[in-house]
Amino acid sequence: MTLKYESVSLEDARRIIAAGEAKAGEIGQPSNIAVVDVGGNLVAHVRMDGAWIGSVDISINKAFTSRAFDITTADLGVNACPGAQFFGINVSNGGRVMIFAGGVPLRLGDRVVGAVGVSGGSGEQDQTVADAASAAF
Amino acid sequence: MTLKYESVSLEDARRIIAAGEAKAGEIGQPSNIAVVDVGGNLVAHVRMDGAWIGSVDISINKAFTSRAFDITTADLGVNACPGAQFFGINVSNGGRVMIFAGGVPLRLGDRVVGAVGVSGGSGEQDQTVADAASAAF
Amino acid sequence: MTLKYESVSLEDARRIIAAGEAKAGEIGQPSNIAVVDVGGNLVAHVRMDGAWIGSVDISINKAFTSRAFDITTADLGVNACPGAQFFGINVSNGGRVMIFAGGVPLRLGDRVVGAVGVSGGSGEQDQTVADAASAAF
Amino acid sequence: MTLKYESVSLEDARRIIAAGEAKAGEIGQPSNIAVVDVGGNLVAHVRMDGAWIGSVDISINKAFTSRAFDITTADLGVNACPGAQFFGINVSNGGRVMIFAGGVPLRLGDRVVGAVGVSGGSGEQDQTVADAASAAF
Repeated sequence: MTLKYESVSLEDARRIIAAGEAKAGEIGQPSNIAVVDVGGNLVAHVRMDGAWIGSVDISINKAFTSRAFDITTADLGVNACPGAQFFGINVSNGGRVMIFAGGVPLRLGDRVVGAVGVSGGSGEQDQTVADAASAAF
Repeated sequence: MTLKYESVSLEDARRIIAAGEAKAGEIGQPSNIAVVDVGGNLVAHVRMDGAWIGSVDISINKAFTSRAFDITTADLGVNACPGAQFFGINVSNGGRVMIFAGGVPLRLGDRVVGAVGVSGGSGEQDQTVADAASAAF
Repeated sequence: MTLKYESVSLEDARRIIAAGEAKAGEIGQPSNIAVVDVGGNLVAHVRMDGAWIGSVDISINKAFTSRAFDITTADLGVNACPGAQFFGINVSNGGRVMIFAGGVPLRLGDRVVGAVGVSGGSGEQDQTVADAASAAF
Repeated sequence: MTLKYESVSLEDARRIIAAGEAKAGEIGQPSNIAVVDVGGNLVAHVRMDGAWIGSVDISINKAFTSRAFDITTADLGVNACPGAQFFGINVSNGGRVMIFAGGVPLRLGDRVVGAVGVSGGSGEQDQTVADAASAAF
C-alpha cells in the first residue's frame, strides 16, 4: 500500500517567498529565502539585492533541516547545545543541518508538506521573516 | 494549490527487496539492494552476506539517480558517454549520480513514486536483479 | 584603483526566469532554472512543478559554470571531451562544473555579469530554454 | 598469522531491526534503524513510514560510530562535550561521527562484531529502541 503525500507547489513557494520579502523589506534586512518540498528538495530560492552570499546555502539548508526533522531550526538549536539530546546533529547529513533560527516547517493540519528557510540578518530577524513567510502558506 | 504525491511505503520496499534477493540468490550473485521514496530519500537497504562493501553507496545512489531523473541508470549511462547530451552529469549532486546499470524507477501508471538500486555484480546481473525487484512493486 | 562590477539584480533574475518558464511551458518540459550573479553566487532558482529533483543542483551549477568560465556549458563541453584541452575539468571546483548544454553567460556588451542555468529535459531542450531566458536580459 | 573476525549477518541484522521496530511501534515513534557489520559497513537499514528523512543518515552513522569506537554514542557524547577528552571528534571521519544517544555496539563476549543505530525521536526514545534492538542479537 503506497503512502500519500501533499507538497508545496511552485505557486505556494512564490507566495511564501513574496511574504518573506515584504517582511524583510519592512525591517530593512535583505535576506535569502528558500522553500523546499515534502521530500526536502528545493522548490525556489531568492537572494534579495545586497543579501549575504554565504546565506544562499544557509537559507536552503535551514529549509531542508526544518523538513528533515519537522521542527523549527530555532527549536532544534536548543536541543543541539552541549549537553542537550541532539548535541552534534549539525555535522550529520553532509553538513546540511542548520541549528539556528530561520527555518520553519510548512504544515497542513498535522502534516509537514515543506519548509521555508531564511538567512540574512540576526537570528531574530531571520525568524521574523520566516514566520511572515510561513504564515502566507 | 498543493501537489499530491504517492510514494512507496516500507512494506512496498520490503516486497521489492525480497524479490531482488530471490533473483540474486537464483543467479548466485550476492547484492546490495536499496529502495528510495518519491522524494529520493532512502526507505530500506540490504546487503546480502558476501556482497561488496563498496556497493552499499552505489546501490543507494543508483536508486536516488533513477528517481532524481525518472530514468534507469542504464539509459542515463548511454546519455552520459563522451559526446552524448549528458556527458559529465555524474559529478553533479555531490557525486550521487550513478550512470551504469542497476537503477530502475518504480512507477504507478505514468508517475514515478520511488526507485530501486542494485549493486553487487556485473552490469547485466545488477539489471537482472533490479528488474526482478521492480516487477514486484 | 578598485574594480567596478555590474551584476544581474534579483529583478533581472526574475525576468530571465520568467522568460525561461514561458519557453519551458511552450515546449512542454518542466525545468529547473537558476540565475547567478557576477560573483557566481545564486540570485534565484525555481523548480517548475514536476521537474526532476536531480536537476536542482545541475541548474544552479550550470549557471555557476557559465559565469566561472564565461562560456556556455555546451561550448565548455566540447573542450571537455576525452583528448580535448579541458578534459577532466568537471571534477574541479568540488564537482560544480557542468559540461553539457543549458548554461549561458549573461552579457552587457563584452562583460559577463551573471549566468543562467537550465536543467530538466534533453540537452537541446535545456539549451532552448536557456537561450530564451538569457534573451530576456 | 591472519586475523579472524566474526560479524553480524544479514539474518542477524533483520532480527535486530525487527526488535527495534517492535519497540518503536510500542512507544509510538517511527524510527530509522540501521545495522553495520564488524567493518563498520552498512548491512541493512529501514525507515519506518513517517520517520524523519534527516534521520536516514543519522541512524546509519550512529551505527558506524558505535562500531568505529566500540562505544555507545551516548557515552561517546559525554566525552565529546566542551572540555572533555574527545571534544571535536564529531567533525572527523567526514562528519560521520554521531555523539548523541541511539548507537549501540553489538557484542559477542568481549568482541564488538557490529552495531545498531536508531534515529527518529528524542535521545531517550532512540536509546530505548536501540537497546531493544541490540538485545535481540
